[in-house]
Amino acid sequence: MRTQLKDVTKDTERAEVIGWVHEVRDLGGLSFYILRDRTGFLQATVVKKKAPETVIECAKSISRESVVRITGAVKATEKAPGGREIIPETMELISRAETPLPLDVSEKVLAEVDTRIDNRYLDARRPKVGAIFKIRSAVTHALYDLFFSEGFINIHSPKVVAAATEGGTELFPLAYFEKEAFLNQSPQLYKQMMMSAGFEKVFEIGPIFRAEEHNTTRHLNEATSIDVEVSFADHNDVMDLLERAVVAAYANVEKTCSDELELFDIDFTVPKSPFPKITYAQAIDIAAISIDEGIGYGDDLSTAAERAIGEEMGQHYFITDWPTEIKPYYAMPFEDNPEVCKAFDMMHPRMELSSGAQRIHQHDLLVEQIINKGLSPESFEFYLKPFKYGMPPHSGWGMGMERLIMTMLDLPNIREAVLFPRDRHRLTP
Amino acid sequence: MRTQLKDVTKDTERAEVIGWVHEVRDLGGLSFYILRDRTGFLQATVVKKKAPETVIECAKSISRESVVRITGAVKATEKAPGGREIIPETMELISRAETPLPLDVSEKVLAEVDTRIDNRYLDARRPKVGAIFKIRSAVTHALYDLFFSEGFINIHSPKVVAAATEGGTELFPLAYFEKEAFLNQSPQLYKQMMMSAGFEKVFEIGPIFRAEEHNTTRHLNEATSIDVEVSFADHNDVMDLLERAVVAAYANVEKTCSDELELFDIDFTVPKSPFPKITYAQAIDIAAISIDEGIGYGDDLSTAAERAIGEEMGQHYFITDWPTEIKPYYAMPFEDNPEVCKAFDMMHPRMELSSGAQRIHQHDLLVEQIINKGLSPESFEFYLKPFKYGMPPHSGWGMGMERLIMTMLDLPNIREAVLFPRDRHRLTP
Repeated sequence: MRTQLKDVTKDTERAEVIGWVHEVRDLGGLSFYILRDRTGFLQATVVKKKAPETVIECAKSISRESVVRITGAVKATEKAPGGREIIPETMELISRAETPLPLDVSEKVLAEVDTRIDNRYLDARRPKVGAIFKIRSAVTHALYDLFFSEGFINIHSPKVVAAATEGGTELFPLAYFEKEAFLNQSPQLYKQMMMSAGFEKVFEIGPIFRAEEHNTTRHLNEATSIDVEVSFADHNDVMDLLERAVVAAYANVEKTCSDELELFDIDFTVPKSPFPKITYAQAIDIAAISIDEGIGYGDDLSTAAERAIGEEMGQHYFITDWPTEIKPYYAMPFEDNPEVCKAFDMMHPRMELSSGAQRIHQHDLLVEQIINKGLSPESFEFYLKPFKYGMPPHSGWGMGMERLIMTMLDLPNIREAVLFPRDRHRLTP
Repeated sequence: MRTQLKDVTKDTERAEVIGWVHEVRDLGGLSFYILRDRTGFLQATVVKKKAPETVIECAKSISRESVVRITGAVKATEKAPGGREIIPETMELISRAETPLPLDVSEKVLAEVDTRIDNRYLDARRPKVGAIFKIRSAVTHALYDLFFSEGFINIHSPKVVAAATEGGTELFPLAYFEKEAFLNQSPQLYKQMMMSAGFEKVFEIGPIFRAEEHNTTRHLNEATSIDVEVSFADHNDVMDLLERAVVAAYANVEKTCSDELELFDIDFTVPKSPFPKITYAQAIDIAAISIDEGIGYGDDLSTAAERAIGEEMGQHYFITDWPTEIKPYYAMPFEDNPEVCKAFDMMHPRMELSSGAQRIHQHDLLVEQIINKGLSPESFEFYLKPFKYGMPPHSGWGMGMERLIMTMLDLPNIREAVLFPRDRHRLTP
């Protein structure tokens, strides 16, 4: 029965529509109601002298952002959005919105991020905000399609865990019946156990939790991670896969979200593969020239360094050949130069999107590296056990969904890329 | 270079293969190594008088469940699995498995569930166990395809929350910086907020957490929930969708997992739609005849009652028209008979798989129902606010992924349907 608003055209004769009242303009004898649904807008025009009494009664009582159902004839008109309007013959208030609204949905200028997120159910009615999440869903769609088409097994790893993979920092503690537990900061160990189990190619798109205290525009304490792990693959193989994933995500957005993209003032282009690769040493050289603070081989890349290198590169790129010392213990050192390891970061000019590596699959080398990092193998017993019984060579990566969306749409704050962000100070809604 | 084992046929001339050593049989002059990868098995045959010295050296040192790479000629033979064998010309130990193994992978009889899950990375090497998770992945695949093809938006709702939707029972508490938080037991409120935001059709497949103390073969404390919510839809519309989802899941398993299904001693058939519907009152009548304990209108359905009704029904079915009193406050009462509500359960003969309802979208009716349940509207302020500003009519459901898999494959214990189960006593691996 009901027609979506985008499907009401100049050639439609009659329609039944349901939508939110985006705008009301009452000119006395004539009043206009701009309806909105997830597909678009439609003007309803009520001429008081001609409209049925029931329509006039209903129209009088309508507040902005209420939900109404209208049936009537559709007419072409130059003056209305989309070149057509509906003339209500019946009009029914389905759900009234109280006044005043906590947030003005029709206002062009966006309110502060905090006010918007406090009222996300209203904020996300704005076409541009809704578009972010349609695009995010198109990205998810592309990724599931890609991984399934390449024979990956989708896994669901536990989020409540007894111990930490990365050495125990920055975990949220939890009361699990009589025990202490933690929220998992990465599915990596579980992906690796599935390599041991012979699953060969696994992926998971799910929540990760990091109790980092810094409150920036590019960190979240609960985020969505896109994680893959592949057996009998080296770091180059999974860099290729990562490139395919990013390109597939952009390509699907280009293909399915052209209306949504028009709402953003961006130059949207599907990144070209192959992405250029520079070594960590080259990256440091670029940064050293461009930034004021000193930086040298062995240093982490600061935000300023990432920006300087990104400006130089001007597109998605990889940083490879990292010093073994500054990457996690599980990154595979090069056989002929163990000071350097088969880890990589995949970068957008604005920031890091993904980290990955060929992992160490040899139990004894892993123990050695844990000791080299000043950690105790005893506290990694749980992690180490699967490496004793036939762990194949494997590689993998994790990519932040929110950063992928944020950089794709040039959003100023990562909180824009998640419906209900969680940060140091925010637990609601 | 490397060929997957199922792709090595009688007609293959030469191959390079990698696999786990599933079985070793040493007959003196002749030894057999059954290799296994995620696609199948292949026998490698070493004739000591003929094989290269390097192969004999390597073969001697090989323990079961080690990972080896073999290159050689392939020959047809009646005596080997799949009617072919590989004669190693090179053989390389990639990753040694220590002996003894904590779990015997080749043994036909499965160990106790607890031992198996403690060593899941070995347990999941068993073809039948691995098959469960390939089938689970095929189910996930079918669901994503279905929801995307029907225009749903995939959302990721927060798992760390400040308050409870269902009234605050059975939540895991969490230390979130200086605040107390909880793990979310259902994405329902977040799905409903997206209805308010006009997203119209949303789905999420993600973790839910319930601190229920009972330790049974069909409850988990961390589970994967398949959740949908649809605006302008009533309970009948979303029951139809639920039916499509179950049928699509089974159909994709039938289509893509025939090898895996053969490992189960089950009569696998795609359920026929439409699923029969019985009212709660009819369900009680059936149960009352069949079970010893007394049961009457207004009672919850006990496990015994569910079984009795399931036996009578013999297939997937819906129970509709529940008493408003025993369903959650947000279920929509029938307009002409508010003692009964538009809630439903979708049942497999063995157990409940899904609950859903048309939800109350009217703020004042929701407040009334919260009071009727003896709850305080003040403590639901956070939940109620989005209902004040144009909430459309909507309906939805949640279905347990593990129960769907457990009933599909007739698994005795729900722990079999999840890689790393979490229960009252289990937090590892």
